[in-house]
Parts: sequence; structure tokens; C-alpha cells
Amino acid sequence: MAFKSDIEIARAAKKLPIQKIGERLGIGAEDLVPYGHDKAKVSQRFIESIQDRPNGKLILVTAINPTPAGEGKTTTTVGLGDGLNAIGKKAAICIREASLGPNFGMKGGAAGGGYAQIVPMEDMNLHFTGDFHAITSAHSLLSAMIDNHIYWGNELAIDMRRVVWRRVVDMNDRALRQITAALGGVANGFPRETGYDITVASEVMAILCLSRDLKDLEKRLGDMIVAYRRDHSPVYCRDLKAEGAMTVLLKDAMQPNLVQTLEHNPAFVHGGPFANIAHGCNSVIATTTALKLADYVVTEAGFGADLGAEKFMNIKCRKAGLKPDCVVLVATVRAMKMNGGVAKADLGPENVAAVKKGCANLGRHIENLHGFGVPVVVAINHFSGDSEAEIEAVQSYVSGRGAEAIVSRHWEQGGKGAVNLAMRVAEIADSGRSQFAPLYEDEMPLFEKIRTIATRIYRADEVLADKRIRDQLHAWEDQGYGHLPVCMAKTQYSFSTDPNLRGAPTGHSVPVREVRLSAGAGFVVVICGEIMTMPGLPRHPSAESIRLNEAGQIEGLF
Amino acid sequence: MAFKSDIEIARAAKKLPIQKIGERLGIGAEDLVPYGHDKAKVSQRFIESIQDRPNGKLILVTAINPTPAGEGKTTTTVGLGDGLNAIGKKAAICIREASLGPNFGMKGGAAGGGYAQIVPMEDMNLHFTGDFHAITSAHSLLSAMIDNHIYWGNELAIDMRRVVWRRVVDMNDRALRQITAALGGVANGFPRETGYDITVASEVMAILCLSRDLKDLEKRLGDMIVAYRRDHSPVYCRDLKAEGAMTVLLKDAMQPNLVQTLEHNPAFVHGGPFANIAHGCNSVIATTTALKLADYVVTEAGFGADLGAEKFMNIKCRKAGLKPDCVVLVATVRAMKMNGGVAKADLGPENVAAVKKGCANLGRHIENLHGFGVPVVVAINHFSGDSEAEIEAVQSYVSGRGAEAIVSRHWEQGGKGAVNLAMRVAEIADSGRSQFAPLYEDEMPLFEKIRTIATRIYRADEVLADKRIRDQLHAWEDQGYGHLPVCMAKTQYSFSTDPNLRGAPTGHSVPVREVRLSAGAGFVVVICGEIMTMPGLPRHPSAESIRLNEAGQIEGLF
Repeated sequence: MAFKSDIEIARAAKKLPIQKIGERLGIGAEDLVPYGHDKAKVSQRFIESIQDRPNGKLILVTAINPTPAGEGKTTTTVGLGDGLNAIGKKAAICIREASLGPNFGMKGGAAGGGYAQIVPMEDMNLHFTGDFHAITSAHSLLSAMIDNHIYWGNELAIDMRRVVWRRVVDMNDRALRQITAALGGVANGFPRETGYDITVASEVMAILCLSRDLKDLEKRLGDMIVAYRRDHSPVYCRDLKAEGAMTVLLKDAMQPNLVQTLEHNPAFVHGGPFANIAHGCNSVIATTTALKLADYVVTEAGFGADLGAEKFMNIKCRKAGLKPDCVVLVATVRAMKMNGGVAKADLGPENVAAVKKGCANLGRHIENLHGFGVPVVVAINHFSGDSEAEIEAVQSYVSGRGAEAIVSRHWEQGGKGAVNLAMRVAEIADSGRSQFAPLYEDEMPLFEKIRTIATRIYRADEVLADKRIRDQLHAWEDQGYGHLPVCMAKTQYSFSTDPNLRGAPTGHSVPVREVRLSAGAGFVVVICGEIMTMPGLPRHPSAESIRLNEAGQIEGLF
Repeated sequence: MAFKSDIEIARAAKKLPIQKIGERLGIGAEDLVPYGHDKAKVSQRFIESIQDRPNGKLILVTAINPTPAGEGKTTTTVGLGDGLNAIGKKAAICIREASLGPNFGMKGGAAGGGYAQIVPMEDMNLHFTGDFHAITSAHSLLSAMIDNHIYWGNELAIDMRRVVWRRVVDMNDRALRQITAALGGVANGFPRETGYDITVASEVMAILCLSRDLKDLEKRLGDMIVAYRRDHSPVYCRDLKAEGAMTVLLKDAMQPNLVQTLEHNPAFVHGGPFANIAHGCNSVIATTTALKLADYVVTEAGFGADLGAEKFMNIKCRKAGLKPDCVVLVATVRAMKMNGGVAKADLGPENVAAVKKGCANLGRHIENLHGFGVPVVVAINHFSGDSEAEIEAVQSYVSGRGAEAIVSRHWEQGGKGAVNLAMRVAEIADSGRSQFAPLYEDEMPLFEKIRTIATRIYRADEVLADKRIRDQLHAWEDQGYGHLPVCMAKTQYSFSTDPNLRGAPTGHSVPVREVRLSAGAGFVVVICGEIMTMPGLPRHPSAESIRLNEAGQIEGLF
């Protein structure tokens, strides 16, 4: 059989009407708000009506530190969901939405790959159901209201130099990173420096993804700090009376989106916060809704387990009262080889020694996840070139770490390729073995929280933070923000803050460059390294070759 | 009966599922792309399939120059559509979409009023089906690609001082009118001055509304001039290879939106270009589609007939090959009184003399419309305070001008209140009386086109334009743009360029301040007076009181 590309497979898919997918979860057509024939939102009313139901089992899919070889985390999430359905379980998938802007720089991403994909792929890479546009609108409204408030007399005494609320757009536009606004004289306001981030970096996005319901959303929006006065006292979104109108703009976006896998299994695709300055998981409301509707919910977290799973556990689970019943850690033989020092071009030939050497990264993630009290299954996402001896090397390594590694062939075979993985995961999730607890208590001082993550997850020797940063953390503790979790922003390529340090480094330091308070989302962002919140376009952006062909199909997007 | 507000009436409406509305036009459920249960887009495929059908009759609703008394142009458009259906005709309505941003400054507008409304009113004032977000995205992509091109070496030799493509956002944000972008050093590009307009002012909006199909859309997008070189030669959107990706972003937005009136009659609500720097009509594709599906299509144009109807005739009809069969000119007794010199607070008591005096404005619009070869019916949009004698005064005046005036009570009674108007309009439309022709030929030089409109529509003595402007027009003629129509941007409150000059002024001059080429939309914008393309928010924007109440209803938007 000739290999088809992801987009070819996705286009050939025979989708069911979305109402049929809803039916399988017990959602009536009247409670599905359709967006076309293959996408729908689940109505607020329906979500409210199911709150008394028991929860299904929650399965988190995470991964080793990403390598250029590709691990296939989303592919495995989809494959496992299909696999669970294939063995007769009622399972749903929860993943994040894609950001529109970056697709016009580099080619867009599938939701999964091979025969483990979520469709409609093109819509999901474009406007989808408009959630990100709604977030951009809500964010932009607040931006306009801040400068408007200053324009009309600045009753709140905002220090114009200390407006921390920037603007956002869902487009890679480096020219907007730093601007001077309100030029042109009296009628246009008071000139000041500001800039744009990409929409997924908006605190509004993080809030939408952490809010339990619209009421919670409105409260959190009101809690956001938009500026400071000369005396350094904060000015809140609430002070500008913006949170009500922002909630109105977000009311549809708060409803989770339902789509389907190639095998017609339900997938919720909702929310997409940055995985560095935010927590990088799909929305709480999608996950909690899915848990009421399915017996097993497979979800994923951004980046490797050191960032994604850590935030999933310490931020999302903590805030939403969730408890993962099983964690699936995705690895590939190829990635083990790369961690073992093999260059991407040389991944072809069998190299058991390199695989063994590269397993250290995997091993540390297993240990870390066990530290949260959760059982771990390693999914070896199978590639055709993997040799039996290489697979055996990974499995043997993993079983020596109190876990087990199962080969999964969902990319090639869809759900039936993931049956072994699904059976074992269901067994573990049902076993009640999980004794989940976050890594630290709310009461721990902020700097201790950072140190706990740095030493216990990253295995660093120390955290470096100058007095200015420690003073800032103390000040927030004094203002009542000491109970918040911390949201680490560092490279995803290494346990350390050096992206080139693969494997399982020790003896390193974690330098904290900056801390930011996301008072509405409810976390303190800890920035360790360069964090880009507004990407640029490459010399030849993919937009140059994106077009509709004669058949009305989109070319160049994938 | 106690009067209900527009929003109370709209909320009490029992809407039919949008598929039922589609059915009435012969659109199958598979060809309606639903957005919720009460909104849908008509599929591209279906539109292509009906191109061989004959066209229905086209009825344009326009108005006298707007006064603070309110004329009810959209209300009459909706009422007439309902009235035509009430007398057994198959009629559809075509109106523009509302812009989201301004609703957060001042309270949002209904689509119609009283018992002549289009629903769902709230959605139509918020994200609706996402068309404007798509336009913002497409516009923003091109903006980013221009600065990105300069960043990577500027192969096209764009003169950074002559980038005419600004950025847009659908929000009233005066602080963005004039900015300096790309500050912050090498990584962020080359600093330059630019600014934002509101999305409805984007040339992309005008193009979407004038394009016959996606192919035409892509060509027009490519034709847009984004900048000039040092030698003043234009740089086109096509040179940046952006038009294909922009078309992909706009492909759903190009499909007309179908909603319903309170009486369950079909209404297409699609596109919303500015009525000053653009032509201010709903999309060509909505109008042409409606004409294939209904026997009568009632549409409207922005502002008064001097701007809106003139552009409808000279720009939209010319470009789309449309011919209006009847024009309805909306007037009210109250507006006649205001034109006759009565203050808004004094409109209550009967004042036949003022009505008679104010009719001059109405009379000139009738004359002007006759100049296009179209039959005119004046609709007196009835208010409860109107006296018989006042109405009679208007009717008698109108009949002396070769037209007739019919009282219509759609606001109070819905379609049945507009039966008399509908019967007469249908009769005229069916009569074949219309001998429509645009006011000027394509071949007329640009300045002559301006003079023709100024003297024949505005009844000015002269057009004032300095050498710089005349040279610019000649230069465009030399470049092959001389065949384009002109798009006048002046105050809507007067035939003249002085907003305080009511009635039917003569002896005035039309000063041209600036001309702009919209090479993709295909017109030359002629700016006569202050034109604001980015509104600001008031001291207390309506956003401050917009919120969801306990019942989940939106408060403060209306």
C-alpha cells in the first residue's frame, strides 16, 4: 500500500453529520449548536443539565522532550481514543484548537496523523468555530477601553508607563511587537509605547481555558491586572467595567466544540493557550463536559512532560479538581536514538546502543510522573523502520523503571492498531491505582514552588533569581497572590533551560529572568529564557503558496 | 397595547429553524451551512447551480438625507419584504451586516424596528457568522506580509514612506489611528508610521461585497495597491503573493448569510462596507443569489439617496450588471418637519407648513432618482403622531413631482401594515417601466465623473480641486484606471458638503480634499470633508453596561 499524506487521508474521510457524533454521547440535536455539518458547540444549557452525573476516567497523554524526529503526541491521543472505542469502551478525546496566524508562516498542522486524525482538518486550521476571533475581540475591547479611559481624563490615575495590558492579533506580525500608539495629536489620545502578542498568548485565552462556567469566566476577567498607578497599586479590568462586555463576546466561545476522528469517535477541540507563558491545555469546560459524557477521556498537554504534564497537574487539575487516572507517555524509537546522539539524517539504520543511551530522558519523565502519584504507560508510537531489538531495548528499560511500554500502530492502522495500548490503559484507569496529588501545596511560598519544580522535575541544583524578582514575588504574596501556582516558561527541548542539553541533565541552574502575574488566570508566570509571544513570518511564508485550486480545495496549507 | 421595545419584540419572536426558511427559497438542508439553528450560509455549490435561472425584480430602498428624527430605512426594507410576502409574492430581503466594534461604544442597532425586524438581532450585532473576523484576518495577513517583505530585504523596493496599506481591527480604538510600528531593534523590522482603520473600512470588505465569485474575489485582491516605490510605481498585493491565502481566509465569508424576519420571511444579511470611503451596500453575491431565488428582492443602500442610491446605481449596479425595477424612497412626516426647520423637541404638534417647507429635500431626491430612469415610490414610514393633514401635504407634494407617496404602518403592524406599499411596488416593478442607466459612462474622465455627480446630484455650482488632485486623477487615467467609477465620501446630512445645510441647497461648491485609488474594489474614492475611518469610544462606552444577566440574556447591548 502506498503511503498517503495526512491531508489526503483527511480529505478522503467520510465524515458523519455532527449530530450523529453528538448522539453517541447522548447530546440531542437541539443541544448541539452547529457550525456547518461537521462541527458543533455543545450548548451551555446542556452542560448545566449534566453536572450531577459521575465522571469518567481521565487519561493524560504526554511525551518525552520533543526532538526533530517527532513523537506524535496528538496522533497517539487520537489513536488511543479510537483504540478505546475499538475495544468497546465509550471514550472521548479532548485536544487544543490551533492558532490561525502561524499557519500562514509555516505549513499548518494536522490534528493527529496518518489514520489517527481528527477532522475537519482544514477548518480546524482556519477560523474553526470562531473561538480565537472572539478572544481577540474581547482582548481588543479591553485594550481600547484602557486608552479610552486615559483619553477621557484618567480618573483611575493609571500610570501610562505601567500599562501591562498589551494588544493581540492572531497573526505572525513581528512589526507589531513594539509600537508607539496614540500619535497624531489631541484627538487620538496620549502617546505611549505598547505592543502586540499573538492571540493565544492573551490572558483571556488562559482564562477561557481555566473557567468552570460563564460566571467564573466573568469573575476571572474582572480580576485581571491591566496597569499600575504611580504608587504601584494595581488597576483591574473590573475597574474599567470591561468584564461584562468581554463575557458577552466570549459566551459562544465558552461552549466546547465537538468534532470527530476518522473513525467517527467524538473529539472535543477547545481552547489553545500558549504552553510557555500559560498552561498549554485544552479548556477545563471541555474536559469536565467530556468526563460527564464518556467513560474514558483522553486528553493531552503541550510540549514534553516536564512542562506540559507538570502544568496539567499543578495548574489545570488543581484548579478544576481533576485527577488523572493514568498517564500515557509517548516516545518513539527514533527519538530515543536522537537523544542517544544520532543525527536526524542517520535515524534509518538499527542502533540499539543509541536507543539505550537515549532512554535516560524517558526514564526521568517516568520518575517525575510517578512523583505525582499517577501510573504511567509508555506508548511507543511505531514507525515502520523500528527494529524489534530497538523496541525491545525501550521496553526492557521502561520495565526496569516501574512502568511498561506498549507498541502502538495507530498511525498506520487507526484504532485497531492501538488496541493493546487501549486495553492496558483502560485496565489501569479502572484499577483505582492512581493516587494523584499536585507537587506542591497552595500554601508554599512562590519562590519555593519554583524551586520545587526546578529541583524535582528539572533536577537542577539551584534557581537563580535576583533580588528584584524575589522582592516582586514577596510583594505578590503580601497582596494575597501567594496561594497561586507557578507557570514555568522555559525551553521545551531540555529538562534544563539550555535547549541543546538532551537526555537527563543534572547539575544545572535555572535562571529566572522575569516573573509576571496573571491574576485572572490565576498563576504566576516564571520566565526562564527567551520567550517569544509574537512570532514573525519566514522569508517565504507559506501564505505565498496557499490558494484555492480549481476544485475549490485548499492548496499549500499542509 | 403598550409599546414594546425592539429588543423585547425580537426576543419574543418564535424563530423557525433556518432550514425551513431555506426550504421556502428551494435551498435544501445540505446546501445550507448552519451557524447555530437560526443562521446559515448558502453553499458555494448551490449558488453555482442556480446561475442559469431568471432574475427576480430588484427593489432598492433609499431615503432622504438623514435627520435626528430617524427615517427607518431598514425598517421599511424589512416591512416591504414582509408586505410583499403578505400579498402572496415570493420576496427576499438583502441588507448589510453590522460591525461589532461600534456596538461597544454606543448601543447596538436592530435590523429594522418594531414589528419589521430581522432576527437573531443579538448575534447580528456580535460575531454573527464570522464574516468580519475573516475580513480582519485576511487584511491582517497582508499587513504582516508587507512588513515581512521589507524585513527580509525588500526585493520589491517598496518605499517604506509610501506604504498605503494600513491595518484594521473591528473595534473603536482611537489610540491606533496613528502608530509607529516595528520599534525595538533589528529583530522587529524597520520602524515606520502607519495606523489602523475599523474593519468595515478595509478595501477587502469592499471587494468581498463587489465580487461575483471566489475567482473574481482573488483577482480583485491581487489588484489592490499596497505601496509605491520611490519612482511612484505601484506595488500590488499580487506582488506579495498574498491574494491566494487571503481568498482561502475569505472563502466561507463569501457565502451569503440567510436569516429571517419576525414573519419568517427570508433575509440575506451579508457584507457591510463603509458608506463613505466605500459603496455602502450589501454584497453583490447576496443580491444576485436572492434574485435567482425570489421573484422580488428588496435591498437598501447606506445614508440618503444622494450618497447611497447614487453609489448603488453607479457602482454596484454598474459592476454587477444589476437593474433596479423600482426605488422606494423613505421619508417621515417628522423628518419633513425637521427639514422644514422644526427642532427635534418640537416635533409633536401638527405643523403642516413646516412639512411643506421640508419637502424640498424629498423632492430633489425624487428628481435625482428619476434621472437614473427608475420609477420612484415614496414610503411614508408612519409614526403615531403624524396627522392626516401632514401626510396629505407630503402626498400632494410628491404627486406633483411625478411620483406617489404611500403611508406604511409596518413598524406597528409588520407586513400587513405594508400591504398597500407592497402592492404598488410590485405593480411598478412588474410594469417594466424602469429604464435604468447609470449617471455617467465608464469612458468619462475621472474629474468629469466627480463634476457630474456634484452638479446633477448635489446641485453644486462647481467642484474645487487643486492641481495636485487633478494631476493625481490624470496619472491614474494614464495608468489605466480612468474607466473606474468614483466613490464620493461626504457628509450624509446634506446634499452639500456642509452638514448643517438641510433641505435642497444650491449655489454651493464641492471641495475635494483628497482622492484615493481602490484598485481592487474598482473605484476612485473622492474625499470631500472630514472622513473618520477609525471611530473612538465615548466617555462612558456602552461596554461598561453590557453583561449577561442571570437568565443568560445580554443586557446593555440595545
